[in-house]
Amino acid sequence: MSDPSTFVESSAPPPPPSGPRPRITNRGRTAGPAANSNLDTSDIPEYEYFVAPGPRGYPPLTEFLDIVDVDMKHLPEGKNRISHKTHLFNLNALVVRRGQEFEIKIIFNRPYKPSEDKFAVEFVIGSSPQYSKGTYMPVFTSKDRQTSWKGRITDTFENTLTMGITPDPNCIVGKYHMYVAVVTPYGIRRTKREKSRDLYILFNPWAADDEVFLNDETERQECVMNEMGIIYHGSYDDIAERTWNFGQFNYGVLDACLYILDRSQMPITNRGDAVKVVRQASAMLNSRDDEGVLVGNWSGDYTYGVAPTSWTGSTDILLTYASSQRSVCYAQCWVYAAVFNSFLRCLGIPSRVVTNFFSAHDNNGNLKTDIILDENGRIDRGQTKDSIWNYHCWNECYMARKDLPAGFGGWQVVDATPQETSDGMYRCGPASVNAIKHGQMCYPYDAPFVFAEVNSDVVFYMRGKDGTLEPVKVNHSHVGRGIFTKTPGELTRKEITDQYKFEEGSTEERTVLEKAEEFGCKREQSDPPPADVDLVLPSVELAVGQDLELSVEFVNRSQQRRTVDAYVSGSVVYYTGVTSSEFLFRTPSVTIGPNKSVKELVDIEARSYMKHLVEQANLNFIVTGKVKETGQIVTAMKVVTLHNPKLFIKVSGVARVSEEMLATVQFTNPFTFNLEGIYMRMEGPGAMLPRFRYYSLLTPNSSLVWSEKFNPQRAGTTRIIASLDCPALRQVYGEESIIVEP
Amino acid sequence: MSDPSTFVESSAPPPPPSGPRPRITNRGRTAGPAANSNLDTSDIPEYEYFVAPGPRGYPPLTEFLDIVDVDMKHLPEGKNRISHKTHLFNLNALVVRRGQEFEIKIIFNRPYKPSEDKFAVEFVIGSSPQYSKGTYMPVFTSKDRQTSWKGRITDTFENTLTMGITPDPNCIVGKYHMYVAVVTPYGIRRTKREKSRDLYILFNPWAADDEVFLNDETERQECVMNEMGIIYHGSYDDIAERTWNFGQFNYGVLDACLYILDRSQMPITNRGDAVKVVRQASAMLNSRDDEGVLVGNWSGDYTYGVAPTSWTGSTDILLTYASSQRSVCYAQCWVYAAVFNSFLRCLGIPSRVVTNFFSAHDNNGNLKTDIILDENGRIDRGQTKDSIWNYHCWNECYMARKDLPAGFGGWQVVDATPQETSDGMYRCGPASVNAIKHGQMCYPYDAPFVFAEVNSDVVFYMRGKDGTLEPVKVNHSHVGRGIFTKTPGELTRKEITDQYKFEEGSTEERTVLEKAEEFGCKREQSDPPPADVDLVLPSVELAVGQDLELSVEFVNRSQQRRTVDAYVSGSVVYYTGVTSSEFLFRTPSVTIGPNKSVKELVDIEARSYMKHLVEQANLNFIVTGKVKETGQIVTAMKVVTLHNPKLFIKVSGVARVSEEMLATVQFTNPFTFNLEGIYMRMEGPGAMLPRFRYYSLLTPNSSLVWSEKFNPQRAGTTRIIASLDCPALRQVYGEESIIVEP
Repeated sequence: MSDPSTFVESSAPPPPPSGPRPRITNRGRTAGPAANSNLDTSDIPEYEYFVAPGPRGYPPLTEFLDIVDVDMKHLPEGKNRISHKTHLFNLNALVVRRGQEFEIKIIFNRPYKPSEDKFAVEFVIGSSPQYSKGTYMPVFTSKDRQTSWKGRITDTFENTLTMGITPDPNCIVGKYHMYVAVVTPYGIRRTKREKSRDLYILFNPWAADDEVFLNDETERQECVMNEMGIIYHGSYDDIAERTWNFGQFNYGVLDACLYILDRSQMPITNRGDAVKVVRQASAMLNSRDDEGVLVGNWSGDYTYGVAPTSWTGSTDILLTYASSQRSVCYAQCWVYAAVFNSFLRCLGIPSRVVTNFFSAHDNNGNLKTDIILDENGRIDRGQTKDSIWNYHCWNECYMARKDLPAGFGGWQVVDATPQETSDGMYRCGPASVNAIKHGQMCYPYDAPFVFAEVNSDVVFYMRGKDGTLEPVKVNHSHVGRGIFTKTPGELTRKEITDQYKFEEGSTEERTVLEKAEEFGCKREQSDPPPADVDLVLPSVELAVGQDLELSVEFVNRSQQRRTVDAYVSGSVVYYTGVTSSEFLFRTPSVTIGPNKSVKELVDIEARSYMKHLVEQANLNFIVTGKVKETGQIVTAMKVVTLHNPKLFIKVSGVARVSEEMLATVQFTNPFTFNLEGIYMRMEGPGAMLPRFRYYSLLTPNSSLVWSEKFNPQRAGTTRIIASLDCPALRQVYGEESIIVEP
Repeated sequence: MSDPSTFVESSAPPPPPSGPRPRITNRGRTAGPAANSNLDTSDIPEYEYFVAPGPRGYPPLTEFLDIVDVDMKHLPEGKNRISHKTHLFNLNALVVRRGQEFEIKIIFNRPYKPSEDKFAVEFVIGSSPQYSKGTYMPVFTSKDRQTSWKGRITDTFENTLTMGITPDPNCIVGKYHMYVAVVTPYGIRRTKREKSRDLYILFNPWAADDEVFLNDETERQECVMNEMGIIYHGSYDDIAERTWNFGQFNYGVLDACLYILDRSQMPITNRGDAVKVVRQASAMLNSRDDEGVLVGNWSGDYTYGVAPTSWTGSTDILLTYASSQRSVCYAQCWVYAAVFNSFLRCLGIPSRVVTNFFSAHDNNGNLKTDIILDENGRIDRGQTKDSIWNYHCWNECYMARKDLPAGFGGWQVVDATPQETSDGMYRCGPASVNAIKHGQMCYPYDAPFVFAEVNSDVVFYMRGKDGTLEPVKVNHSHVGRGIFTKTPGELTRKEITDQYKFEEGSTEERTVLEKAEEFGCKREQSDPPPADVDLVLPSVELAVGQDLELSVEFVNRSQQRRTVDAYVSGSVVYYTGVTSSEFLFRTPSVTIGPNKSVKELVDIEARSYMKHLVEQANLNFIVTGKVKETGQIVTAMKVVTLHNPKLFIKVSGVARVSEEMLATVQFTNPFTFNLEGIYMRMEGPGAMLPRFRYYSLLTPNSSLVWSEKFNPQRAGTTRIIASLDCPALRQVYGEESIIVEP
């Protein structure tokens, strides 16, 4: 019974109202916004009455026990700071670790009477404090009122009560506000919010109930307390090192680390979970997706920021990010790993930087790195897209992994360098090192990716005329050649390859690879028989600017004469294995008698490669060829890292805490060309905050000398670290050790 | 030897060049960009010569076998389309499923001679085709040249060759280009790119080697082929249903689904992996993080888009997203689940929409939903932040899960509704239903989250004066009360709760909960003894606008008299359990004799709730109270879904393919107030594309009548579905079944 007069009918809807769309709210979706910033706070009220106001208003709660002061820090000899191993933090506030008792002093207006006075110390974090979420935690002194945060009276003296407080070993990590609440028959009266009573609670590798518990004091001293790191780079048979100042205890660094989590909008309630914290941080350390800390740049053009090779420590980067609230330019893998390490050590999660030599990349759980040759055995650069990084740095952090079955706790790989894909976001890990070793790829997070980085085969394919590829050689041992980290408590390197892989060729290794295949890792199935001619390239140590005689040895293991038509190619490559330019190409034809070997010498003048050099000065030699008699393919690869000149650092003065000292850096231009736009940096853990200096020009053979005064802040062994960086010459470092007396 | 004349020294670096920062490139990082769009293509050349040009240029390859035409589709009776179950796609191009043979015809310029003619059919996807990545696949007819895509000659007749091609059952899913390449002694000559030869390759639940293989024809017909869905909603004891047109075979929908993956920049090489495809899609179906398909809105204000309750199918949403390239407004959980289902069925992944009644939310692996009472037993709404959704819809999809140990394949939960947190992105799954049932929370992805949705306890806490919470009642059976989906091949619902959980109170259930706790799920440990007084609220069926007499029964199971001071609260709630407004509050005090029961009746007039109604018209009654004699807490909760008026649909005409029919929708305003701004929608799977109509006003007791002509496209049972939606009255549906004769 339609009555057209009552309505206007139309098949097109009216246009929506003009103006900007309203912001979508959570109304109807959730009862309240989720707390996801440690900076947001909601103060709890000073008075909470239990009774309605009487005719003369509320009774004055001040008639009851009153709090005169709360002393968070001034216990004799910084007792909390020493026992919690937080004494190195350059911070006024109290910093403690969870699952371990700390003490505070409460000064009342009269002596505390246990029988009649009731009070609680309350800890609050984030904007919607709630007991059941762990964001509001009251702590009591009486035995029958204990929560998961334990409290007890350790001393009373006149009006002063000393209270021991043990936060839950699983509690949220971050910055808390503290209140003292006195409960009276009429209501609650609490202290006002007082910034000086804010305290930081961190992860605790010393507490057996904390998931990051690490039962080895040498490891804890290294992986939590040490600000000075050594990062390995270069090439597998010529390993170089750089010193790095993690600076995790420097002023402002702890707040910057909490800011990183805030910026990621990580819910406060998840911040007690080490697995979630490290996963979130692996995403936030790079700027992809989420405006994170560091912008990656591998292009060689760093005009708009600091060259990745120029940084000497993390402090500058973290403080700049927190103050500018913008991503910092620029990083490559070791910068990501080093800054991530600062973050982890700062929050109390044991961590270390590791370097994997010949790291397979971007092949996404596929255990093959493909090199395509043409029908004559020459590399087809247009078709070869995979690359093997000369080295790649990532982090390991230590935790129990309660989310996995037993056996997969311990060291976990996390990686903040933005890779091609890691489950749709630029992040990686935590992946259990033990799971990787045993091919248990089914456990989160990203184990197949890391497994491929250390276990990929290099497969050489010959590309047929019809576009098909035939595998002609499979190299099982090139990738993941060696994995290294700094030895705890020492200045040497420690090989940890055996924690990632069983021995090459062992039964266990085969079992693991089969296991990995069950979980969908794809390997090259064919195993073409090895040629009976071997190619050998020797290890080479070479300073930048030197000439080189490359010796290519052809070894004939057969009983017949063999002739090899070879292609010898020399390229300047980025450390990512990506080719910049080919500076050498030869096509020798070599004949080798039965069971003989022949050395083919190739002379390379420095000027042929010098003009092509990119920042890390790596030369990559690839020799491929086809044996005429058998049609078999022979290959050999060698990366030569050119050695840069060094900076010389001299430290003078009396090495004693707070005494003034002088560090002098000297550098002479050894080249025949000018160096322009030179940045120099210098810093030292616990001794010198980052300093830098700019020089516009350094002519050949002239020198620069830069001196800085500094006052060491604490006793022990430390180093002054300096870098020099300019577009024509990158990665020049120097360091000098000093032993500071107390 | 510093020589100051040669350089300018400064402690501040020069400012960086002005102007916009250059775009960071991949130079030095990767050898080439990753292919992540199915729309990007790089054509392969028409000629590839093996030899250098002679003095008269290249030899004319046209002297050899030449290709006159390639026929992709016109096999007798659409053989490929029928055998691949792709005949319903409203699309001109060939659509086939992987792991199963399809045929093409190649017409040469002369009869094909197997002994001398060599050719390959080449399939190419994405911008950097490569054999080893599966993005360039040549297919040969000769037995000794087979790749993982099999080829064979099935027929030859004069110049025409019919070739059978079987794509690898793990191949990339998407739109391929096809070429035919003839190999001559001088080079390769191939057909030019021809759009009509593009073809789509989909997942194949009918192929035993495909990871999405589903060995049940009834299930496959439902979960891949059926365009009509039924989605359950309402409340557990009064389940309602809505019909939905998934429309996965409609024109443009397949391209829209591929656009979704392109928009997410998912690497082409991952698109053969069902686990990765569904995970990526779960992130992309919502607009959070990634400008995905649908904007969530639970606020009740849908001025700037379409109300979630108004949609009747997915076609409109998917086509609008693909053409506007902007997120579509608005969705709530069933819209996300329905559109996700269209995506999955379209690509060939078996899937279904499931509804979980009383779904715990936002508690992040914590198995507790907290309700906070004050000391008198009354709900403290300021402190209660958790909510339980009356129902929540998600999807299940079927796959082998090769990435997990055996036993966790089969149905997998995926959920596109943006939740509070799922590993830092708004997405969820795939999580193995079997892993959830067995408490195996350690396997990816997001199993703890789904486990909590179906297994959380409701914990009632009493909040003490000092802010501490004491658990007073734990309800183990409220959450995850029933999980339902449509029965395959029928129009009824099927309960699948037993696929997610063991029986309440069974030994297996306890074991599973203990297992889940081992993996870090936190449960309430205390189990306060149940009170000896029970509260019972009856099931209520109520039409919107009706008065209601609520009967609250107090059952005293003790041998003593009991007095309960009760709070009866009635609120209008969103379907998310979030309270909009309280319309009823009573505080009866009830005395019950030993082993007796007392019914307390509460009269509720329609006008008390009508003015507060939000879209899905749910009333939530909560009764809490404290037993005076024992101090114990009693609680009861009941959600009443008000029944809306229905739309009446009449279909007339002869129901035969292509014959014109007429659908007439009629609605009378049963209320005493005007309905304004009315949207109506109508569509029918395989019968009518979405139509809509707008009415500005419908006065009380007046009616509207809307007729639309349509021509059914195919035989079988289908429905015409209509909805009416306006701010004052949402979620009014009607449908009418028709059986179309061939």
